[in-house]
Amino acid sequence: MSVVVVQPSRTVRKPFDARQVQLVDGFWADRVRINRERTIPHGLDQLRRAGNLENLRLAAGGAGAYRGDLPFLDSDVYKWLEAVGWSADDDLAAAADEVIALVAAAQRGDGYLNSYVQVVGGGVPYRDLSWGHELYSAGHLIQAAVAWHRARGDDRLLTIAVRAAEHLLTESLVDGHPGVEMALVELTRVTGDRRYLTRAAAMLDMRGHGRLRGAERFGPTYWQDHEPVRDAASVAGHAVRQLYLDCGAVDVAVELGDDQLLAAVRRRWNDLMHTRTYLTGGMGSRHRDEAFGDPYELPPDRAYAETCAAIASVMLAWRLLLATGEAGYADAIERTLYNGVLSGVSLDGTRFFYTNPLQLRTRRAPGGTAGRRPWYACACCPPNLMRLLGSWQQYLATYDDTGIQLHQYASADVIAGPIRLRIRTAYPWDGRVTVHIEQTPPQPWTLSLRVPRWCHSATLTEPDGTLAAPAGTVKRHRRWQPGEVAELSLDMPPRITEPDPRVDAIRGCVAVERGPLVYCVESADAPEGMEIEELTWDRHRAFATVPGPEMVGIAVPVARGGTAGAIPYFAWANRGVGGMRVWIPR
Amino acid sequence: MSVVVVQPSRTVRKPFDARQVQLVDGFWADRVRINRERTIPHGLDQLRRAGNLENLRLAAGGAGAYRGDLPFLDSDVYKWLEAVGWSADDDLAAAADEVIALVAAAQRGDGYLNSYVQVVGGGVPYRDLSWGHELYSAGHLIQAAVAWHRARGDDRLLTIAVRAAEHLLTESLVDGHPGVEMALVELTRVTGDRRYLTRAAAMLDMRGHGRLRGAERFGPTYWQDHEPVRDAASVAGHAVRQLYLDCGAVDVAVELGDDQLLAAVRRRWNDLMHTRTYLTGGMGSRHRDEAFGDPYELPPDRAYAETCAAIASVMLAWRLLLATGEAGYADAIERTLYNGVLSGVSLDGTRFFYTNPLQLRTRRAPGGTAGRRPWYACACCPPNLMRLLGSWQQYLATYDDTGIQLHQYASADVIAGPIRLRIRTAYPWDGRVTVHIEQTPPQPWTLSLRVPRWCHSATLTEPDGTLAAPAGTVKRHRRWQPGEVAELSLDMPPRITEPDPRVDAIRGCVAVERGPLVYCVESADAPEGMEIEELTWDRHRAFATVPGPEMVGIAVPVARGGTAGAIPYFAWANRGVGGMRVWIPR
Repeated sequence: MSVVVVQPSRTVRKPFDARQVQLVDGFWADRVRINRERTIPHGLDQLRRAGNLENLRLAAGGAGAYRGDLPFLDSDVYKWLEAVGWSADDDLAAAADEVIALVAAAQRGDGYLNSYVQVVGGGVPYRDLSWGHELYSAGHLIQAAVAWHRARGDDRLLTIAVRAAEHLLTESLVDGHPGVEMALVELTRVTGDRRYLTRAAAMLDMRGHGRLRGAERFGPTYWQDHEPVRDAASVAGHAVRQLYLDCGAVDVAVELGDDQLLAAVRRRWNDLMHTRTYLTGGMGSRHRDEAFGDPYELPPDRAYAETCAAIASVMLAWRLLLATGEAGYADAIERTLYNGVLSGVSLDGTRFFYTNPLQLRTRRAPGGTAGRRPWYACACCPPNLMRLLGSWQQYLATYDDTGIQLHQYASADVIAGPIRLRIRTAYPWDGRVTVHIEQTPPQPWTLSLRVPRWCHSATLTEPDGTLAAPAGTVKRHRRWQPGEVAELSLDMPPRITEPDPRVDAIRGCVAVERGPLVYCVESADAPEGMEIEELTWDRHRAFATVPGPEMVGIAVPVARGGTAGAIPYFAWANRGVGGMRVWIPR
Repeated sequence: MSVVVVQPSRTVRKPFDARQVQLVDGFWADRVRINRERTIPHGLDQLRRAGNLENLRLAAGGAGAYRGDLPFLDSDVYKWLEAVGWSADDDLAAAADEVIALVAAAQRGDGYLNSYVQVVGGGVPYRDLSWGHELYSAGHLIQAAVAWHRARGDDRLLTIAVRAAEHLLTESLVDGHPGVEMALVELTRVTGDRRYLTRAAAMLDMRGHGRLRGAERFGPTYWQDHEPVRDAASVAGHAVRQLYLDCGAVDVAVELGDDQLLAAVRRRWNDLMHTRTYLTGGMGSRHRDEAFGDPYELPPDRAYAETCAAIASVMLAWRLLLATGEAGYADAIERTLYNGVLSGVSLDGTRFFYTNPLQLRTRRAPGGTAGRRPWYACACCPPNLMRLLGSWQQYLATYDDTGIQLHQYASADVIAGPIRLRIRTAYPWDGRVTVHIEQTPPQPWTLSLRVPRWCHSATLTEPDGTLAAPAGTVKRHRRWQPGEVAELSLDMPPRITEPDPRVDAIRGCVAVERGPLVYCVESADAPEGMEIEELTWDRHRAFATVPGPEMVGIAVPVARGGTAGAIPYFAWANRGVGGMRVWIPR
């Protein structure tokens, strides 16, 4: 049993067991701790208040009125359970006992389990595949079960999930919201039963022929039913649906050795990165249908950039990284984690953003955003954050027959069989990462470190000397000795980022970045008496970094001799909600 | 009886009877003729195909299945009837007989009339005021009845409308979609029965207290229930709803002498013009809820700019022009008619745009626009265009005790009691407008001509000499003689328009305008081998006008020595749908 979030059976890179990577301290250790200590308990409280648990009680035969009118409320419970599973915290696991019991009680004798259909929908399964989210919800149940099986050796949920999966195998179904495909592949990985994988593969190829009913509303593109998964050249429609679908496609492709399918996903990903991804890694430009827009349609103010889409893109990039080993996927994961994902949760871990715009005006239309909220009627994002942060250390490194690859930087101890590494860094505030070789076999092996694409000056210093490290991957294949140190040094001065001229909405603007972090200016940090809408960057004066106790700020020179304070984008809207801009006019 | 689209009993300016203004030839005469000969007949055909007429037949007791799932389908029929009413065409009127008979047959014994409620909704009126559009639809029935009463002296519809109005007076109601308010005021003007006016006034003040149910979806702002009509400082929410509401507010204000209410609408209008109006006069920046956005949120690509919103803004500006006499309202009408309204219908009059963006990319997301369509499932815009164009000559001029005011320019004969004017012009292609005084009383009177704000060099030549005419209004009070001529000369070279720096989405771009027309570049007119996305304006080379048989084009100098052809925005998407831009990067 390995504690692994995604466990492909044959890929270029292999994920570590979560227990092999121990976060020690620093940026991500703090975020993971806050997730475990604050966010996940807050989640249980909110699920109780919002009625999600009560709805399961009703499905189990309890009396009362169904709460909420969305058909996928169970999935929030499953995502929360998955987060608890990965979090390796016995107190949280104990608190989950009640929830697992509710889930078990709610399951019907025939294995079917969906509180909305059972309580509100007349009990007939699969009647509204387009909008019903039944398979989507079952997918999240399976993912929770996989987490508890792998991380805790607890199969209570797996027993439920297998019965639910068997029920949905009885009919040939395609869900309006993808997600079950990757779950079914994982279920095969856990159980060895290849029928789940086969069905997932079939679901992928059934899609794309305009068969889903209800497409009048947004068109078949909305749920990727406009073009077969193997053929579509670009992402389209609802962003989270597309990204979850492509996660499932990679999972199927690596299990079945389906290179054509993998190539289709890689082609879409490449186009997505170049034409439809925000500087923050956020995706999905349109509010109307939570969709990708045209190529280069990336408005900062009306960015939808749903937190779930950013999370889904990390899930997809991780699968592609494992499948190909290419550093670019880890670059994308870094950019998205630090910016588009982390902006979705407040610094204290208990308030959330559903959408993550790159600009908010000081004066706004009535009825607009009131800032972060403790929960949402459609609460897909908060528990999605919980499960991602609960398994964060998974994304730090991989291994293969030749050695170890470090993809993300955090202070951590890595134990890989005969190899033990002590990684120490103040990243992302500082660009030095030291890797202490605490234990090593006598044979030579390769230590690989990602050199982020944002870094224009990097070196690797190791016992044999110092070498320049261009963006991509720096590798050292040698006979390591215990006690040796390799130090990666990433230069990270504040830098100005010019937009692609094809992005119409931010023409004539620049962004400020430092290291992996995108910065923004909030009203609170504009020069005295100046609205954020009046700021223009003064290119003739220099930046200054402003080290603080919690984060490094940047003093941005602006016109009229003023200076605006920029803070990391992920930290915005933690001091009330005034105006905010990532892109600042020249 | 006067043939007047809006007939306030006391305003600063008075509208002419439609029969007093005869369009002779030229731009608007052509558009009005195409509307009458092509568009309105096409509308009847489409109403038949779409099931709107069949639905009325079902309401009258016929057997069959209701077509479409929108509750306001009757209103399309009423708007079409209104268009026929204003169009002064006996053949169209004869074709409408069948439709009027259907409407009459569908009305219940108690006066209630709504095919959706009667056939699909269980027959219980006013159960879903928020989304049901029952009063909104009744408002359009009343407007059609007013048109047939005034323009044709035919009261078949008025009899039906009065009964329907009496039914809705039985309860105290506020509709989620405003519109009935202005209709009720007109019904008072036609019948003399002040109860309708009083009820309209009450409806206005009942709004704005968060009472409408169903606001979970878009919030109470969506239907202007967030703040009282008298208090709200800015427009907000669904654009057409806000504009129709303010039309009703002006109508009530002028009838009741309610200056506070009028001032509230003027305040909102002023803010709207400065912060939320596209260059084309289009309004409503957001797709999600068809709503106004934040101040200066005016993306060209994702402009919603619904055709109905542009029409509604003309209706509102016209009411404010009558109420105040201020030329700025006529400026707004001109800009919107030539650009944001007229873009909604193809040159041949049979294909329509629902949304009117100012930019379309060459490469677009799958499932996006496929160009103009012959009809829409939600077909509010096409018959709205028909009724506006069917009464276009109404907007040309007004009168008061001192004389005649010309607001829009077209070749037309105006007969105002003892005064007869023969107006001749090739506007908007040429800026000269000659006004021949064919008949005049011996007393002095004032001829007023609007000098559009876009014009920076204008003169008025009349028998006593030539005077410079600054933007606003040029007036001549004199003892006119038959045979005299006044000539307004508006200089209209192509001009570059810089955007307000607060409009983020078009920073670093310029637009090309000439006279009242906004121009755009389509893919078909980009330099050979260049995508429209690659164009940048070359400020060092001059424009050239390119007179054509149908319209005046402009040759725009672009980088790399090329020239792009610009055509009037209203004419775009008549040669297939490639890319299009109004705002061109510098």
